[in-house]
Amino acid sequence: MSSVKIIELKESILEDNDRDADALRAEMKAARRFYLNIMSSPGSGKTSCILRTAEKLKERFSIGVMEADIDASVDAETVAAAGFPAVQLHTGGMCHLDADMSRQGIRALDAAAAELGLPAPEFVILENVGNLVCPAEFDTGAELNAVILSVPEGDDKPLKYPLMFEQCSAALVNKIDAAPAFDFDFDKVKKNILFRKPDCEVFFVSAKKDQGFDEWCEWLAAQAKRALRG
Amino acid sequence: MSSVKIIELKESILEDNDRDADALRAEMKAARRFYLNIMSSPGSGKTSCILRTAEKLKERFSIGVMEADIDASVDAETVAAAGFPAVQLHTGGMCHLDADMSRQGIRALDAAAAELGLPAPEFVILENVGNLVCPAEFDTGAELNAVILSVPEGDDKPLKYPLMFEQCSAALVNKIDAAPAFDFDFDKVKKNILFRKPDCEVFFVSAKKDQGFDEWCEWLAAQAKRALRG
Repeated sequence: MSSVKIIELKESILEDNDRDADALRAEMKAARRFYLNIMSSPGSGKTSCILRTAEKLKERFSIGVMEADIDASVDAETVAAAGFPAVQLHTGGMCHLDADMSRQGIRALDAAAAELGLPAPEFVILENVGNLVCPAEFDTGAELNAVILSVPEGDDKPLKYPLMFEQCSAALVNKIDAAPAFDFDFDKVKKNILFRKPDCEVFFVSAKKDQGFDEWCEWLAAQAKRALRG
Repeated sequence: MSSVKIIELKESILEDNDRDADALRAEMKAARRFYLNIMSSPGSGKTSCILRTAEKLKERFSIGVMEADIDASVDAETVAAAGFPAVQLHTGGMCHLDADMSRQGIRALDAAAAELGLPAPEFVILENVGNLVCPAEFDTGAELNAVILSVPEGDDKPLKYPLMFEQCSAALVNKIDAAPAFDFDFDKVKKNILFRKPDCEVFFVSAKKDQGFDEWCEWLAAQAKRALRG
């Protein structure tokens, strides 16, 4: 049996999600906490990228992970098995998380950390619902949004899902180890990402083979430190 | 320059999409036309699976294809280049198609066919927006829904995206040629699909290598013939 807490999120009753997201960002900043929102298609490797990232940064930050899904709890179990405080958030069929749902999740994550005898994590990672469309439309209150695009999905995806790439400060191109099996143009994908978001930081990684994570994690740690300094 | 028509869909003003979808199904049936809705994550190979399917069935049915995307028109251009009537539908940021948007698309497709000197296609294929969540919530009025799940996405996806698999009569597991590069369990994915939809027809295919399409197309042709007989 699973030991991770499954949180059934309640739909927000707030009308103004943007204002609520700004409020959550201010709350997290005041509490010296950093909130990272990871988005992607289903199956692009969010969980394994989060695990690699958490492993590399765990000496520098106390890290907790919220795994959002419509159903199932395999991802939170994977993260918890690696030793990180984790909760599974169920969205009740909804295709995205908003700020109030984030706040419910962070409270549950803090409770899960407390049960492990740990303080509230200062570095909170959300694995959003696997979806390249809707999560981009809802501000979660995160300090930083990142998108993962995997090689098998194709280098044209930034052209087809504009808002997602416009909303993200960083893009991880994952599964580069599988590139030989696919027609995938690394220069073209970078060009397509920068077409949507000219100042996006693009990282080429393989979570499976542990490639490219040092560069991403150094950049991410710098962002988090700057935010935590206030 | 592209020669395909790009249709900017208007948001439906109808409140009852389910009723409108039933009406569209009845209209298509009365006109002896078959409407197939293909759904999947971004990058699972919808366009290439549709092309393989259209090639194999073109002697038996007159086929037209509607490609839905938030932006870009590469998919419709690919289909048109293969000689099929095709239109690109832009959803204006929306994550799904509903019945009224389908009707707008079918009208545009019929006009595109007429420009080629062809009758209104009797077999209409919709490539829905790449998204495993929202398209499953909106009845397009199609006679048959099929989902594509590609090997790199992982065999656990039916557990995480329940409604999508519950809504589909057929599932194509695509990119089986790439299986050696991934941990993917064919028995497990079939079990997970049937857990969501016990009578789902599951086909293992590779659009890239033209594997598995004869079986899928024979099954699909039988469904279409039955529907066209009325």
